[in-house]
Amino acid sequence: MTGLLLTNVRPLGGESVDVLIADGRIARMGAGLDAPEGVSVEDGAGALLLPGLVEAHVHLDKNVLGLPWRSNSAGPTIRQTIDNERRLRTELGMDPARQSARLAALCVANGSTHIRSHIDVDTTHGLAGVEGVLATKEAFRDAVEIQTVAFPQSGLLTRPGTLELMAAALEMGVDVVGGIDPCTIEFDPKGHVDAVFGLAQKFGRPVDIHLHEPNELGLFSMTLIAERTRALGMAGKVAIGHAFALGMPDGAAVEAMLEVLAASGVAVMTTGPAGHPAPPVKRLRAAGVDVCAGSDNIRDLWSPYGNGDMLDRARLVGMRNGLSTDEDLRLAFDLCSFAGAKMMGLSGYGLAVGDVGDGVLVEAGSVAEAVVLAPVRKLVVKRGRVVARDGRPTA
Amino acid sequence: MTGLLLTNVRPLGGESVDVLIADGRIARMGAGLDAPEGVSVEDGAGALLLPGLVEAHVHLDKNVLGLPWRSNSAGPTIRQTIDNERRLRTELGMDPARQSARLAALCVANGSTHIRSHIDVDTTHGLAGVEGVLATKEAFRDAVEIQTVAFPQSGLLTRPGTLELMAAALEMGVDVVGGIDPCTIEFDPKGHVDAVFGLAQKFGRPVDIHLHEPNELGLFSMTLIAERTRALGMAGKVAIGHAFALGMPDGAAVEAMLEVLAASGVAVMTTGPAGHPAPPVKRLRAAGVDVCAGSDNIRDLWSPYGNGDMLDRARLVGMRNGLSTDEDLRLAFDLCSFAGAKMMGLSGYGLAVGDVGDGVLVEAGSVAEAVVLAPVRKLVVKRGRVVARDGRPTA
Repeated sequence: MTGLLLTNVRPLGGESVDVLIADGRIARMGAGLDAPEGVSVEDGAGALLLPGLVEAHVHLDKNVLGLPWRSNSAGPTIRQTIDNERRLRTELGMDPARQSARLAALCVANGSTHIRSHIDVDTTHGLAGVEGVLATKEAFRDAVEIQTVAFPQSGLLTRPGTLELMAAALEMGVDVVGGIDPCTIEFDPKGHVDAVFGLAQKFGRPVDIHLHEPNELGLFSMTLIAERTRALGMAGKVAIGHAFALGMPDGAAVEAMLEVLAASGVAVMTTGPAGHPAPPVKRLRAAGVDVCAGSDNIRDLWSPYGNGDMLDRARLVGMRNGLSTDEDLRLAFDLCSFAGAKMMGLSGYGLAVGDVGDGVLVEAGSVAEAVVLAPVRKLVVKRGRVVARDGRPTA
Repeated sequence: MTGLLLTNVRPLGGESVDVLIADGRIARMGAGLDAPEGVSVEDGAGALLLPGLVEAHVHLDKNVLGLPWRSNSAGPTIRQTIDNERRLRTELGMDPARQSARLAALCVANGSTHIRSHIDVDTTHGLAGVEGVLATKEAFRDAVEIQTVAFPQSGLLTRPGTLELMAAALEMGVDVVGGIDPCTIEFDPKGHVDAVFGLAQKFGRPVDIHLHEPNELGLFSMTLIAERTRALGMAGKVAIGHAFALGMPDGAAVEAMLEVLAASGVAVMTTGPAGHPAPPVKRLRAAGVDVCAGSDNIRDLWSPYGNGDMLDRARLVGMRNGLSTDEDLRLAFDLCSFAGAKMMGLSGYGLAVGDVGDGVLVEAGSVAEAVVLAPVRKLVVKRGRVVARDGRPTA
């Protein structure tokens, strides 16, 4: 038997138990378990055991980790940021395989055991990003599971040839069809949504669309996405990232939209952005809308910020949404774990016997305390293997 | 001579130098300095040298650090939070001397060399908070300089007896006269501002007023504060904390208010709150308004969040304000250092020869990188003494 025995750990803040992971799954949980032959032992010393963290929205392909520091030159408009980035990626030599490996290692060190990464697909760089991230996905397969999204960052229909590249990416094994701002980037909302869902139907893949559009414009695009989701029977397989419009002042309009999203089975991903209107996560939950969290841009040409730490993200989402009771803080954690797993369609995620043997140990009394402290990860376990210790990857 | 020689450090990201601190002041800076007799040496190994961080707004007297975890029970209104806190302070046995010492140690560990702490003064707890924080101020005098504010958290005029307690606090040596929401807590804006400035005039002290009031109401209270500041010739001696109203949607009204604040010499402190309207720090700077940053509530009955880390605060203020270029990130840092020092009226603050020998070492290439990474403090120096190392206080 290969495996790991974690002794004296407190799953989600409960009573101390030992957890035996065998053949990649949680085999037993209880007091005083013995380590079978061949199973290594880690003393948890009473630490809090969390499930593996879920990074539900990140861009592995395009960070500048390890490259010479350079002042951020994004904006002011999204279009300018996109064009600036497409140009600089070449100038700066941002090799997608190398950069995605660096960021994946950072995510692993911070306890993410699952990542959904968008990958730019455009007519300048073609499928280089996809190739690079797929290489990292394979190289890191024992440390973190990476789900990939073909993302038409520069536009899908407005840049002829991109649709074909998206199809090629899906043929290469990319998992999800991405999309972006049907109005403000594509200027053809019906066309964009038709194209994205067309690819999804053709390849049998889920959909995950970036939507930065504000206020009524964003609600309009959401309505189109929800309508396609319902018409095509894709409930549970469609996510909208950012969804800034759900943070608009008109609360009644937001409530009406939440009903539509809930009824059509469209999920929402938020970073809890401090500087933008943000989906109110408690209202989403109350309305039955699936909502999860992600880091989005980490140390790249969009943003100098970001650390790949989904406990810090829970803290940021919590502060953005005024989450302060223990119940609220557990919600913040849920967005960065169970809810992300649901959005990504993971099976066997959790801390019950039979679940996949992933987990994270931190020094905290409870999930709530872990969110406010975001303490260093003592141990990160992927399918029973230790992949990070004291905030550093082991491999 | 007593002192410290820091070798191979890069002040604010500049070229590597040695820095000799003697008798509490920066005596020399240059290459290849020798350590005089009696001076200890710390090898900076090329680390970034920052001035001591400045925590311009915190509540040392009322945190729950080290007490049993308890779900936050604040709100939903400010008045409810105030009343809940006043009651629970007794129930939970939140001894102000012990709790302020715990929080001061956390601030020191994170590199703050100066703190301005508000201290609740009310008719339930009297001057217990003041006594406790003054004890901590004395106990920590070699590690961090603490400036104190008598803060009528529960109301000044609405709770008879508080004004007399405020005067008693100032007689005990408290440095600054505090105030709070003249409209929404006191319901007597003229009376509140008269009382606060009356104490300031009588005792010759600066003023620092909490102002959570939103939109036009907040602007109204600011106008009263600015008018008193001008009438009494107190330019440069008055600060408004939070100033949420400056984040209101009506940009023209905000600009007009900024002109008034700049002309009257009223400074603003922001936490960069993710969940509230926030003063736009670049616009304040452009309008000539002094703006600095603070943590506000740390792990207390107002908020479960907070870590006493002013580099993390720079990051949060930066994210809140969309600060992304290096120049922007240096502004975020400035709010947590030089601007805080100016608001507090410190002399000899900085990293030039002759300045007080305070400093912080971190592993970062530049100030901008230090803001986005908020790395652990390798070394914290107060007047030439090492007071924290690797994120932990030395004493």
